[in-house]
Amino acid sequence: MDDRSKVLKFRSFVWDGVSVRAYKTEGVPYKGVTRQTLLGEAAGEEPFTFLTRYFEIEPGGYSTLERHEHPHAVVVIRGRGRVTLGEKMFDIAPFDCVYVSPGVTHQFRATGEEPLGFLCTVDRVRDRPEVVS
Amino acid sequence: MDDRSKVLKFRSFVWDGVSVRAYKTEGVPYKGVTRQTLLGEAAGEEPFTFLTRYFEIEPGGYSTLERHEHPHAVVVIRGRGRVTLGEKMFDIAPFDCVYVSPGVTHQFRATGEEPLGFLCTVDRVRDRPEVVS
Repeated sequence: MDDRSKVLKFRSFVWDGVSVRAYKTEGVPYKGVTRQTLLGEAAGEEPFTFLTRYFEIEPGGYSTLERHEHPHAVVVIRGRGRVTLGEKMFDIAPFDCVYVSPGVTHQFRATGEEPLGFLCTVDRVRDRPEVVS
Repeated sequence: MDDRSKVLKFRSFVWDGVSVRAYKTEGVPYKGVTRQTLLGEAAGEEPFTFLTRYFEIEPGGYSTLERHEHPHAVVVIRGRGRVTLGEKMFDIAPFDCVYVSPGVTHQFRATGEEPLGFLCTVDRVRDRPEVVS
């Protein structure tokens, strides 16, 4: 057994050993979003079939309006926001959970005075998002 | 497209529409632990290949000392605790992340004055834990 177990210590919404990255690299619409992969991509974490990511959206920012076939499991951990799910909108706050079901157009917005931060778990192998304009 | 997207509102560590259940049903050692499956088991959530669960351990309580081949992705969201990972122990606090790699014996304990609460994501299809005594 190769014990690669570990604890990633939290330091005010960054985590030891985890890089803060740009949300997207393509030229698609979004504003003020960063991403960190907390679990699933580091050396020794290959047994995960899913990735746990943390997204943070600055006040007034928003993620890309998009859809894809893989589902999202989201748990808010910071701030206030609004999520678009198809034709509906919901206000979200810490520890609210969001299920984005396959093919549903979705977008997250930060609506409070502090950043909106949420965990988002996805399959490691998944389809690429399609931008909705 | 069958839009089953939704938001589960948080109400002080219970969530609308989610049942608080016993941690284990077998006669194995543990103390003061409950579980809730937040995402992955409800109707319409079949697209998830993984489950997002919330475990809560009351002060002085602990989970079963066990091991299994499926990995755990844990994010603490409440309280203080200590996790055993093989031969090592780590103190954990809100938003610390824990990777429990395959086959590693592990146990969570609540060490503070409020309950220890953590999210734990696992594969939907997984092996059964083996109790370590």
